[in-house]
Order: sequence, then C-alpha cells, then structure tokens
Amino acid sequence: MASGIPTYPARYRMIVPRIIERKRDGGRISNAEWQELITAYTAGKVPDYQMSALLMAIFFRGLDGEEMYALTDSMLATGSVLDLGHLKIPRLDKHSTGGVGDKVSLVIAPLAASLGIAVPMMSGRGLGHTGGTLDKLEAIPGFRTDLSLDRARAQIEKIGCALIGQTGEIAPADRKLYALRDTSATVEAVPLIAASIMSKKLAEGLTGLVLDIKRGSGSFITDEKSELALARAMIDLGARRKVPVIALFTAMDRPLGFACGNSLEVIESIIALKGHGPEDLMRVTYALGAEMLFLAGKVGRPDDAWPLMREAIASGRALRKLAEIIEAQGGDPRVVDDQNLLPVAPLRSDYLAPRAGYVARVSPRVVGHGIISLGGGRRTMDDSIDPAVGFVIPVKPGDYVEKGEPIGSTHARDEKGLAVGAKALSEAIFIADAPVAPLDLISHRLTAGGRDKWKPPADA
Amino acid sequence: MASGIPTYPARYRMIVPRIIERKRDGGRISNAEWQELITAYTAGKVPDYQMSALLMAIFFRGLDGEEMYALTDSMLATGSVLDLGHLKIPRLDKHSTGGVGDKVSLVIAPLAASLGIAVPMMSGRGLGHTGGTLDKLEAIPGFRTDLSLDRARAQIEKIGCALIGQTGEIAPADRKLYALRDTSATVEAVPLIAASIMSKKLAEGLTGLVLDIKRGSGSFITDEKSELALARAMIDLGARRKVPVIALFTAMDRPLGFACGNSLEVIESIIALKGHGPEDLMRVTYALGAEMLFLAGKVGRPDDAWPLMREAIASGRALRKLAEIIEAQGGDPRVVDDQNLLPVAPLRSDYLAPRAGYVARVSPRVVGHGIISLGGGRRTMDDSIDPAVGFVIPVKPGDYVEKGEPIGSTHARDEKGLAVGAKALSEAIFIADAPVAPLDLISHRLTAGGRDKWKPPADA
Repeated sequence: MASGIPTYPARYRMIVPRIIERKRDGGRISNAEWQELITAYTAGKVPDYQMSALLMAIFFRGLDGEEMYALTDSMLATGSVLDLGHLKIPRLDKHSTGGVGDKVSLVIAPLAASLGIAVPMMSGRGLGHTGGTLDKLEAIPGFRTDLSLDRARAQIEKIGCALIGQTGEIAPADRKLYALRDTSATVEAVPLIAASIMSKKLAEGLTGLVLDIKRGSGSFITDEKSELALARAMIDLGARRKVPVIALFTAMDRPLGFACGNSLEVIESIIALKGHGPEDLMRVTYALGAEMLFLAGKVGRPDDAWPLMREAIASGRALRKLAEIIEAQGGDPRVVDDQNLLPVAPLRSDYLAPRAGYVARVSPRVVGHGIISLGGGRRTMDDSIDPAVGFVIPVKPGDYVEKGEPIGSTHARDEKGLAVGAKALSEAIFIADAPVAPLDLISHRLTAGGRDKWKPPADA
Repeated sequence: MASGIPTYPARYRMIVPRIIERKRDGGRISNAEWQELITAYTAGKVPDYQMSALLMAIFFRGLDGEEMYALTDSMLATGSVLDLGHLKIPRLDKHSTGGVGDKVSLVIAPLAASLGIAVPMMSGRGLGHTGGTLDKLEAIPGFRTDLSLDRARAQIEKIGCALIGQTGEIAPADRKLYALRDTSATVEAVPLIAASIMSKKLAEGLTGLVLDIKRGSGSFITDEKSELALARAMIDLGARRKVPVIALFTAMDRPLGFACGNSLEVIESIIALKGHGPEDLMRVTYALGAEMLFLAGKVGRPDDAWPLMREAIASGRALRKLAEIIEAQGGDPRVVDDQNLLPVAPLRSDYLAPRAGYVARVSPRVVGHGIISLGGGRRTMDDSIDPAVGFVIPVKPGDYVEKGEPIGSTHARDEKGLAVGAKALSEAIFIADAPVAPLDLISHRLTAGGRDKWKPPADA
C-alpha cells in the first residue's frame, strides 16, 4: 500500500470498502454489519478515512429506520448505561437541537426535579454559533460537569437531578464519530444527528424524552422537511426502545429570552426560577416541562402541568432545587441569592436604536458569532472561554422602538470587545417601518401518534 | 479534540471543512483552493479522513471542467515531468481504461517506436479483475519496470521507447489519492478517474495521446453515459494543455485476444509482432496505432497508417524493437525467439464445450477473477503473483462450437489450480442455441471535434 496509509486488520480491509460502496450506490447496511463496523471503528480497527467516506455517502443516501436504529444501538453498546431502574420514579430529560440564548435546561431541570421527576441530563458544549449548557453551568464558580456515571447516579438518587457532560463511559463510538463528522462536513445529516443524540439520551436510562426542535435561521437545520424528519427519526428511535418521545417545534429565528452569554444566561435562569423570567423563555420552559410531567404520568394532560410548575416556582422549591444541584456538583449555591458571585464583565455599554420602527429581526447567528468574537465561545474545541461576556437584548421581533432607545447591551472584557459587540448588535438587529411577523414561538407538537398545532393552555 | 484524531495545521483545520461542505452542497472549488489543498494533502498537512469525505462528495456532486483541470494540474505539480522536448520527434502514448487479455500496450509500443515515434509509456499493475501491463512485462525474466525518470529519458533518447511504472517522481499526489480512493469506495467517479489518468499522462511530456475506452461488462465503467463523459473529460484536459487526445471505444464484453494471464499474454504479444496475432487483438492494435501515427503527423489520415504498421510487423522491425526494449530494461531479449525462456505453468488442461451451440458470452470478469484464483493476480497490493498461470480461450462470442470441442485451457501451478480454472471457464463461457450479437469490437471514435462511428480502412 502506497503513501504511508497504515494497514488495518484484513477482515475490515476486505469488507469495509464493500459496505461503503453499497451505501454509496443506495443499498443498506445490515444490523450485524452496523454492530461489527461500529465496534471495530471504536476499537481503532477501521480507519477514520473509511468512516468519513461512509458518513458522506450517508449524507447523500440516508439510512432507513432499521439502519438508524442499528447504528444507534451499536453506538450505545460501546459504552455504559445509567441504570436508574431501581429508583421506581419516572426519569425524564429534555433535549434541544441548539440555539442562542437557550437556557431552558438550566430552568427546566431543577423545576422538573422539584416536582418529583428524576432528571439525568447529559448536555454538550457550545457548537458553531450556538451555546452549550455545560459552558453555562461552568460559569458558576466551582461547578463540575465531569461527573462519573457512578457519582451522577448517587446524586440523582439523593436529589433527583444531575447535570453532566458526555463522559467517556457513554457511547464512546458517538464521541469518536462526532469529532470525525465535525471535521469532515458530515454533521448536517438527519439520520446521523438523530442516531448521535439518541445514543446518548438512551444511555441515560430514561422513561421518556422531550425534544425542543429549533426552527428558523438560528437553528442548525433550517428547512422544515428536515426538522420534521429529525423529530420523527428520534421519536421512532425512542419507540423502538419503548421510550416515548414528544417533540415541540420552537422558534430560533431570534434568541430565546434576553441574555446571551454564559454567566448572563445563568443569571437570567435564576431570575426565571424566581418567577421573573422573560415571557418567551417562560412559555417555552413551561410548554416543554408540561410534556415532561405528562410523560412522567404526573398529569393526565400537558395543560394540567402548568399550574404545578407555576407553584413550584412561586414557592421557591424550584430555585432551592437548583441550589441543591449546584452544591452537589461543587459549585457555590449562594449564587442563587447573590448574582455578584457569578463572573461579571468589567465593561458594559448600551446599544441604541439607530432609528425608530419595528424590530424586524434579531439574528441568532450574528449574536452567537458575536459572543465567540467577544471570547465567550469557541472557534475550536481547544479554545478556553470567557464566561462573563455576552449580550442582553431586551427587544423581540415585532416590538416598536424609538430612535435612541437602548435595545441591547454588550458585556465585554475590554474596549475592543465593546466595539466588536456594538458592531455585532448593529448587524444582528434590523429595524423596519412596518411590523414583521416572526415565527410562532411554539408551532407544533409531534408525538408517535402524529403532529398537531401547538396551543397554550386556556389560562396561559 | 476527542478520540486521538491528530491535530493538523490550524489553517487547514479552518478551511478544509468549509471546502468539503461547499462541494457537498453543490458548489465549486477554486483553482487556488485546489492547488493549496492538493499540495497540503501531499505534504501530510490535510488528513486522509477529510480527503476521503471530499472524494465521496465529488462522487455525488462531480467537478466542472475548470475544477477537473485545476485538480489535474495540482497533482501534476506535486511531481516531475519527463522532459523530452529536445528530441524534436512526436511523443505519443496509448492508455486503456483496463480490461482482460488486453496486451495491446506490449504490441503497440514497439510497433509505434519502430515507426519513428517516441513512446514514453507509463503503465499500472493489475487492478480488480483487470490485468496490468507492468505485471505482464515482469513475466519476462529480468525485466525491470522501476526505472527512474532520468534513465527512462536516456532510454527513450536511444531507442525511442521505455515501458515504466509510475515512479515516486511522477504526481505523488495521485499515488496517495489513488490509494485512498481504493480503500474508500471512491474509485468510480468520472472526474477523479480522468484527473488521475491525465495527471500521469501529462507528466510523460506527450505531444498526443490515444485512449482505448473499454465498453461492456468487463470494463470498470459499464454505462455508456459515463464512458463518454470519461473520454470527453480526458480530451478536454488534454486540450487545456494543448495535447490532442483521440479516443476509440472498444469492446470489453469478452477478453481481447486468446491469452489471459501474464506470461501467456507476453507470448501472444510476441506472436502478434510476428504477424500471427488473433484477429481482434490485431484490429484494435492497428486502429489505436493508426491514431498514434496520425497524431504524430506521420500520415494525413489514420487509415493510411495501417499499411505502415503491417510493413513494420512483416519486416520484423517491430519485433526487433521489442527485443531492444527488453534488453534495455534488463530482460532477456531471446524470449522473442524462444518462448520457453518465459515462465510456463507445469500443468495444463483443456476445457471442453459441454454442449453444441453458439458462444453467447465469455465473461471478462469471471476470467479475470479466475486468474486471481489461480495466483496470477492480486487480491491486495501486497500479494505476489505467479506469472505463468492463466487461460487461453480461442473462442469468441458468435462462434459455433461442437459438444466436446476444446474451447479453453487452464495453465496452473497444481491440480487444485486446474480444478479452479475449469470451474472459472465453465462459469465464464456460456453457450446458447442461437447466435448472439456481441458489442462492435470498435464502435466509435471521439475527438475534440465530436464523435463518429468507427469504420475500418477499406482494405482491412
């Protein structure tokens, strides 16, 4: 063999090119082949250059339901599963396809746990223009997200919730494949996204899962057909494992809430748990939380869960649960009462509306890339991040603003950051003469049974 | 970065995923990007796993003419070029897309060289079910194909021809890419095939090139649209370098000539140069040779070249040129007079027609794989081969045969080989009640000016 390409075991050298070729030409990969391929790849017996070619062929040719399940199951089987069956209580998680300002996890996890649900939540880091729950949590001084599965299990047994990263114990095949997809332009393939997410979620040992499928310009998938295909694929993968999955489709054509940036989002989450969160954030949190409580059997209809959640917040139970979680994971629980204990950027400046009119657009992508430019996000996985920086944007598409009104603020480390931030805000926020209709904040609800338009409870 | 994937230079980590993504989504890669990408890949600065994903995206999305030229030119630029401009004589080569029993190169190279053309011929080894000119030449005791470019140049200056392999000096990018394509199921992409072939052929410093595009079940490309696209791509690539290229489309729905197997094909080539070759082999050789002489300006019309070639064979000049080449490259030139000096398999057995009827099919793929089973071809590039084994199949589709008539023979190393060979022949040769029309031996002639039906000279 020419060119220094190392030699891999003969069996895989024989069969893998044939498998790639078959997928390339529109054929399918059998369950036994997936099991062998993923096991061998994880063990380093199949090279990255064959796997990336296969991934690209899958980008073009897709996977059928059975193949997708076999891939998910194969990845799951390379690692451990969080076994919580002995707890005898419902185990629910919420997963979002990623957005800007999306701090729902920080609010919903303690909220659901305070209502008697176990929440084994495994999250990720910022990716592209989107933020990551782990990065947000790590803005809390001392907070550790790198818990072992044993420690996470003990914490869930004690306080009902753990907020952790994907440990090396969970689906190592997915970790390795994800890193490869990220560098080989094969991230945006629906069956690969679905299998990757579900291999991790199924490893949490859930009894149910709620999906927040982001729509609009700030989401990773921006066409409606693919959004729906992704949600359906994950619902199908859950059903094959007898884990019911419900998806809500929510707007990511503008940031969720006001705060965008790690520490700023923790602060807004605490405000939300005190009952004063931005309206859009609360509505999405309640809608998703209602599905969790419904799947947990706590209520007969999702609508009935809203009063329970409101009460958990009004009583302070949900906020106390957050403090418990922070304390259990090494963080300083006093942050829930004193936000000065969180990282704060030294400089802040307001961005003023350059004209009067209606806010037509707040671009999540521009805001997300702005955070990266401020040092609050990663360009590569090796970058460290500044948790304090970011934006607060209190206006939403449809709002009328006067010229000179503050419509955003930049929180920066230095003067250069302030300038970078002001430029980002000027590019992100677009003001027009007439009001423009944004996407519905929550448009549809999808279950194994079908898709319906989402409607808020009568009293919401 | 997770999973032990090594870190490559930051610049390429930034730009390569964007290039892959653009091609994946149907965009194009600029000339400057090709140059940088291929140079960096050859230097090991871009990993195989990104390149294989890009190759698979190209399989689905294609390359336009400009991109294909930029890729060819970039690969060419990674190596040396055989500079023969000072010779002041035409420099022609013939390239075949690969077949079974295709020993045209062994006949046409000395034939053309004996008529005053320089023939710097760079060939390959057997690939899949097809044979390779280098393997055939190396059946000649002592024959070396691993000449340096300097030595090849000196030999061409002296005797007008060198028959060599792709040295490390020629288009190293192509060598590396080819090995990757071979293991990542990305061989069968027309623009990649065209760029790979032409990066090597253009390195020969040619004034013209003749292509033998194989058609039918035994060729690598089996659909007419792709055959034509491949030929047009190579003609276009030649034109961009001011090297005129002419393609003939010839039949590979059955082996060419009678002999299939390395030493057996050398013997048949010598017989052909003595004027007694099988009719189909001679016709294809003359047709391709006529185009070489036409491109060399030796004749005004290809048809006028046939008498010149017949004379070169009848006079023994062409055979003497082969002997000169063999001697110059370390082989024993006496093989042209005494075929017992060539490797001969110890065992031979005839295969008898199991019934009377018309030969409907002689499958080149089955014959090619049969040679591999006998030990005469490679399963992997590391395998060594037995030059003596193979088949002689004197019947052609359309021939009438009687039951029990010998219609093929196996030349094997041992009894097991004889059994394997008999089985292969029984599967390769199909006899039917009524005659079946095979493909035209030579169907079309394609030049930069267009495609015409090929017609033999009036006296052929």
